[in-house]
Amino acid sequence: MFGGLVRRYQHQSEELGCSMNFTLFVPPAAAAGGAKVPVIYYLSGLTCTDENFTIKAGAQRKAAELGVALVAPDTSPRGLGIEGEDDSWDFGTGAGFYLDATSPKWKQYRMYSYITRELPAVVRATAPELDVGNASIMGHSMGGHGALTIALKNPAAFKSVSAFAPICNPTQAPWGQKAFAGYLGEGWESAAAEQYDATELAKRYDGPQLPVLMDNGTDDEYLKTQLHPWAFEEAAKGKLALQSRMQEGYDHSYFAISTFIDDHIAFHAKHLGAAA
Amino acid sequence: MFGGLVRRYQHQSEELGCSMNFTLFVPPAAAAGGAKVPVIYYLSGLTCTDENFTIKAGAQRKAAELGVALVAPDTSPRGLGIEGEDDSWDFGTGAGFYLDATSPKWKQYRMYSYITRELPAVVRATAPELDVGNASIMGHSMGGHGALTIALKNPAAFKSVSAFAPICNPTQAPWGQKAFAGYLGEGWESAAAEQYDATELAKRYDGPQLPVLMDNGTDDEYLKTQLHPWAFEEAAKGKLALQSRMQEGYDHSYFAISTFIDDHIAFHAKHLGAAA
Repeated sequence: MFGGLVRRYQHQSEELGCSMNFTLFVPPAAAAGGAKVPVIYYLSGLTCTDENFTIKAGAQRKAAELGVALVAPDTSPRGLGIEGEDDSWDFGTGAGFYLDATSPKWKQYRMYSYITRELPAVVRATAPELDVGNASIMGHSMGGHGALTIALKNPAAFKSVSAFAPICNPTQAPWGQKAFAGYLGEGWESAAAEQYDATELAKRYDGPQLPVLMDNGTDDEYLKTQLHPWAFEEAAKGKLALQSRMQEGYDHSYFAISTFIDDHIAFHAKHLGAAA
Repeated sequence: MFGGLVRRYQHQSEELGCSMNFTLFVPPAAAAGGAKVPVIYYLSGLTCTDENFTIKAGAQRKAAELGVALVAPDTSPRGLGIEGEDDSWDFGTGAGFYLDATSPKWKQYRMYSYITRELPAVVRATAPELDVGNASIMGHSMGGHGALTIALKNPAAFKSVSAFAPICNPTQAPWGQKAFAGYLGEGWESAAAEQYDATELAKRYDGPQLPVLMDNGTDDEYLKTQLHPWAFEEAAKGKLALQSRMQEGYDHSYFAISTFIDDHIAFHAKHLGAAA
């Protein structure tokens, strides 16, 4: 695409104990064997795989132009054979919530460690033309929650973070409560607030300057019940360099993502010092 | 998307005798109630519905910028209950081949008449902000065949035509031969060559100047067996204003379409005299 390469990989994950897919977009600058290019991770939302973003968002055009690579992982372990793993669209398969589960039944759900430790190492080994040490992170919905929480907990690892319609305050949202109760078990409230709630993490943030871009749509059916961007805005005051935008008439779909993806790619490229 | 509107419609088709879907993209200029905007029809390939192009091609960005509407119909009648209609991916449902069937069993497969007569009338009645009289047409694979043959047979109705990896000479290709034999029955060879083969139609073309843009990929797995762009190029000499491009390393997928869609939208917008 756009002079670059879409590459899809399958590997055996040690962290998760199953086979995992991820998809790269390598921009033409890197594909041509030039200098190493920066990396943007994209974390998808509920029900997605590594393919939705690659197929639907139209991100590759701007990534090719600005010389940044895109890394799109899957959203959960697959095929572990845990009883009930495929019963819900918002829990289990396709709904890993980018956390490390502590409840015994779900203990293989370690997407936080997979995304922050194993995946970068695999990408580094697989695609030496990518500068994995120069990275930003973004995501949508559950993946927006993932991007924000992972960046807030690892600000030295990411130059910038952005999100489309993220679940900003999941301890206060039905999706988050269901996931945390299942993956973290008894006493999940305090563990989730401490580790996996972007609003709670922002309140306590005292790390280096972290540029954050967030888009939400006024017609997003989940805006008020699941996303709570205003709670995050309030928590970010004085803590984060947050640019929060409310897009009139846009919903929770990839139609919204594709409309504003260029802004997000350009935002990250600037903070990554992309050369193109 | 991009300040415009994606609208999906369902209507009862008189031509086909079943319910049909189509999807519009109305650019911001028209959505805002300005002057009527020109129309580009997009005909999809085998197995597609009206949604693939809308979700995967990324065409709306350029269409919004240049002020043209996009009309994406389905690829066949659906649910007629004809025995075997769902048995093949390249015949029956999802594979209407943009022709009017004459074999008794498939006589409701009248996608040629649906696209050229019924759909424009339905769009005109549904979306008065579109200037249906100022139209171009494009398509992919089977839909590229559809766009080329429909434009060559109705050059007064289209300002320009373009295609990604079209089946250029379907009477000489397995996909075309299977479709024609089934839909047209005994003696299909001469009927198909006369009415539904772009290369044959180009050889005999004596209509007004018709600008044609065609893209193919060197890594398209169907290039030599199903598409035959060189036969069409040869037939078009002195007959059509054909710009035929061979894109190094691209395949038959929407990754190729999305890479070059901007060129096609701009090509049509120029010939449509789009105002934006």
